[in-house]
Amino acid sequence: MRIYLAGPEVFLPDADALADAKRAICARHGATGIFPTDPVHCPQADASAEDWLAIYLRNEAHIRGADALIANLTPFRGPSADAGTVYELGFMRALGRPIAAYANSAVPFTERTRAFLGEAARQRPDGAWEDSEGLHLESFGLHDNLMIDGGIEAAGGALIRRAVPAADRWRNLDAFEEALRSVMKSS
Amino acid sequence: MRIYLAGPEVFLPDADALADAKRAICARHGATGIFPTDPVHCPQADASAEDWLAIYLRNEAHIRGADALIANLTPFRGPSADAGTVYELGFMRALGRPIAAYANSAVPFTERTRAFLGEAARQRPDGAWEDSEGLHLESFGLHDNLMIDGGIEAAGGALIRRAVPAADRWRNLDAFEEALRSVMKSS
Repeated sequence: MRIYLAGPEVFLPDADALADAKRAICARHGATGIFPTDPVHCPQADASAEDWLAIYLRNEAHIRGADALIANLTPFRGPSADAGTVYELGFMRALGRPIAAYANSAVPFTERTRAFLGEAARQRPDGAWEDSEGLHLESFGLHDNLMIDGGIEAAGGALIRRAVPAADRWRNLDAFEEALRSVMKSS
Repeated sequence: MRIYLAGPEVFLPDADALADAKRAICARHGATGIFPTDPVHCPQADASAEDWLAIYLRNEAHIRGADALIANLTPFRGPSADAGTVYELGFMRALGRPIAAYANSAVPFTERTRAFLGEAARQRPDGAWEDSEGLHLESFGLHDNLMIDGGIEAAGGALIRRAVPAADRWRNLDAFEEALRSVMKSS
């Protein structure tokens, strides 16, 4: 089984080491891990005049060629996961193939958003929360925006959340391995 | 043409008014605007024990039943767009149907991320930027994460960016109408 490894690891200074570590865990479980920066046959990308578009097209080709996707949804520069990872999760859900996810944070979305907003978060008379412009905060006890949790649930996938010390959150792969195990079991 | 209206307007206290306004603009251009909270035939959602999952399933049914999607990518609680909207954009791109987007902000992604990080952003000797943990900042001059700009570009869609005063950014629909015009022209 070929599994696309979606996540913000590509931004790490030691992205190659993380790619190797994730691929090794996949291999141990009998799967092939595909990291976004792996080479892929994509003539359209090779012909692209724009670096960023070539990267996009290669990632899309990787996802189209994969049997499943595991997303790292650890919150990234804000209350939600990395936007590129979320895009790829939605993309794979639409293709109808297995998706799973993990996050090295166990704090629910509502609490993360309230912490992000700080004093700008305010409680309505009915107990719900809103920001300083009156925009509602989702409060379903989920990990992230309901489209993210919902897509994984609708696909029958697992969303593994682990409380990991902040300093380890980009490199601890225990929750990743648990998500991988769930994908392999369901296949 | 049935167009799914993806965006964080659902969180506004006057979401219904925004839905009406967007639908009216669509009607003026000969299209049918579908707002996420519109009713939709979805037995799976009706049978769901969880409110949040029912909402997810209805949104997914709306997207599957739409001919195109226009996403509001105005930055939402962080440097990137609303995570639910990004998920839906990736979903529709995978379905292969037309997508377009707009943002009531003309500040590039790198600058928004630097502003978000504040003093935690630092410049590398090669001029690139990273955060306090060494994670790279994309610097392609794009509107958001390259998967977002890339998906729209790969689909041949428009991404309209307008500098709108912050107080008007959730309700000014000029850029939305321009994105709609581009979708209607390409159809």
